[in-house]
Amino acid sequence: MAPVFTFRLTHTCGEARRGEMVTAHGPVQTPAFMPVGTQGAVKGVLPRDLHEMGAEILLANTYHLSLRPGDARIARLGGLHAFSGWDRAVLTDSGGFQAFSLGDRRTIDEEGVRFRSHLDGSPHQLTPEGAADIQARLGSDIAMVLDECLAFPAERDHAAASMERTARWAARARARFLELSSGAAGEMTNPGQAQFGIVQGGVFPDLRRVSAEATVAVGFEAYAIGGLSVGEPAGQMYDVVACTAPLLPADRPRYLMGTGTPLDLVEGVARGIDLFDCVLPTRNARNGQLFTSSGRLNIKNAAFADDPAPIEEGCGCYACRHFSRAYLRHLHLAGEIGASTLNTLHNLWFYLDTMRRIREALVFGSFDRLRQDVRQVYSPRVADS
Amino acid sequence: MAPVFTFRLTHTCGEARRGEMVTAHGPVQTPAFMPVGTQGAVKGVLPRDLHEMGAEILLANTYHLSLRPGDARIARLGGLHAFSGWDRAVLTDSGGFQAFSLGDRRTIDEEGVRFRSHLDGSPHQLTPEGAADIQARLGSDIAMVLDECLAFPAERDHAAASMERTARWAARARARFLELSSGAAGEMTNPGQAQFGIVQGGVFPDLRRVSAEATVAVGFEAYAIGGLSVGEPAGQMYDVVACTAPLLPADRPRYLMGTGTPLDLVEGVARGIDLFDCVLPTRNARNGQLFTSSGRLNIKNAAFADDPAPIEEGCGCYACRHFSRAYLRHLHLAGEIGASTLNTLHNLWFYLDTMRRIREALVFGSFDRLRQDVRQVYSPRVADS
Repeated sequence: MAPVFTFRLTHTCGEARRGEMVTAHGPVQTPAFMPVGTQGAVKGVLPRDLHEMGAEILLANTYHLSLRPGDARIARLGGLHAFSGWDRAVLTDSGGFQAFSLGDRRTIDEEGVRFRSHLDGSPHQLTPEGAADIQARLGSDIAMVLDECLAFPAERDHAAASMERTARWAARARARFLELSSGAAGEMTNPGQAQFGIVQGGVFPDLRRVSAEATVAVGFEAYAIGGLSVGEPAGQMYDVVACTAPLLPADRPRYLMGTGTPLDLVEGVARGIDLFDCVLPTRNARNGQLFTSSGRLNIKNAAFADDPAPIEEGCGCYACRHFSRAYLRHLHLAGEIGASTLNTLHNLWFYLDTMRRIREALVFGSFDRLRQDVRQVYSPRVADS
Repeated sequence: MAPVFTFRLTHTCGEARRGEMVTAHGPVQTPAFMPVGTQGAVKGVLPRDLHEMGAEILLANTYHLSLRPGDARIARLGGLHAFSGWDRAVLTDSGGFQAFSLGDRRTIDEEGVRFRSHLDGSPHQLTPEGAADIQARLGSDIAMVLDECLAFPAERDHAAASMERTARWAARARARFLELSSGAAGEMTNPGQAQFGIVQGGVFPDLRRVSAEATVAVGFEAYAIGGLSVGEPAGQMYDVVACTAPLLPADRPRYLMGTGTPLDLVEGVARGIDLFDCVLPTRNARNGQLFTSSGRLNIKNAAFADDPAPIEEGCGCYACRHFSRAYLRHLHLAGEIGASTLNTLHNLWFYLDTMRRIREALVFGSFDRLRQDVRQVYSPRVADS
């Protein structure tokens, strides 16, 4: 049987890559940005809006969904796609990042993470095997391994020990995943699902190397770079990506987790990244922070009170095609739900359109120019980084 | 020049009427329900959603819009249609109802209402002439006269005095409206705008008669029945409608303000009403209260936790075509914006579809059966009212 999950590169430009990842729920043109649907919905927009803007893959959060409405319930209702009305690809994280973020509500040992739910205080345990099982029940197209998520800054010894544990967990997660996909786990299976390993190691290049080698040795459908965008300077993050990405198999997608800004997108692509996710476009939209090709724009600004122009002239999103900054400012100040929806439609369009422009530039050899354009607008200060 | 605002009846069935009202922004099939867009947006949905569900006319609130973003600002931005992205008909209320609802923040005299803004405490005055001016600046297709809104219950003497003041205000409002439309008010005009008078008189049939005669004597493009759905029993409300509607010109639309439930729609139509507005479908949607042809449904109910069925089988709304009760319950409990949007899409669809079915029944002579169906589901207790 042909593998359900495939990836092929069509163009390269230095380290940057243009490709196509095929999942059980259709193809994803890469480099790609994944809008975040934490609780089984991208906040503020509907699946038809995501179709309209060309989204091919979403990220959903295992931690939230497993607690509410529950992974067993979602399985009974036909899995995450049927449940959420999203018929294209879905990647689920392992739930680890949220569990680790619970601070004194969680304890970590070799077995996994024990934590108390933020909803009702009920006790839960997340293990490498359990995270694989939950994601099998959710029925995502791509499951992530449980990794230990290190806070920044971390001492080298701490980072090394954590990275080694992540490597041991990776082997356990993969073993369970293969049990599930081989049918050896009884009724519980994960048909068509792929599993991505995660490289850790903080900001230490040698630890990143060890982690990459250990993770690749376990063997996954693809690999992610985790533990970044957690407070380190952007330049340092780019350096870690630059030294880690080449250690990962060239014929497999590379996913930079939880990142980033428009600048992060072009800088990540320039260093060989194929997949991104971030709450920035959706969260900022709800706060009235809009992205444009000439920079950020705060819709609350009094300067927009009488401004008949759209957020961005020439933008193809529904908000820009029909509404003025003056109207969007009014809706935001009035606390209207429509403000969140229209701002989110715009910001996600901007992110997905940026990825389209990146992919096109990679095909036509103009990526460096596009990268410079974005650097000029989104962070002149790191233009030399 | 042919009048911009026209109305013609195409079918009648007892007191019930099927017709078409033509406004400066297109035709409205009647009987019609007007979704409420208080602040220039129907909460939870976008103009394209309203197009999809067949809405032909919206109601917007003059009180809210005149305070924020301000009627002068909306005029500068091209009027309410251009500002809000809604290209079909808009009716604006006079702002009186909200101003009167401010309690001890307002005082009333013969001149009009003085009140302090709920937003910043700033002082304002609303007069019959001023309300006409504000609505001219908003550029709505239908403007309402300023009326005195009586609380329920009211003594007869109080109701009589109030009704008489409303009649005096009606004459002032009409005089100003005609100044505006004749060009006698200088730069300020209201091209294409129609103005509706409002019949008051509380629950007293003889006062309603006096009010109807006085309002019709002033002469408006159409007439509304105000001061109902303010706490009186539904049966009493229906009785007032039944005695008032026949006093209004048969060749003009009749608008029952701020009403109502699904039962109110059929009972109002049965008594000769052509236009309705109410926040019920939109407000209830945000609270998880859904309307179906077999009754109300509270999406929070635990019984729906594993329910794969749509809100209503066979409903054509986007929510019912793509999502289960289980998913909608999850979104509501999770506090997702999408819950408000999907629930509002459904409730407004239900209301507009009910009006479609009423119009069809009036054409095919089956209105009595439809009315009985709705009475059985929505209030068996008042089936004998």
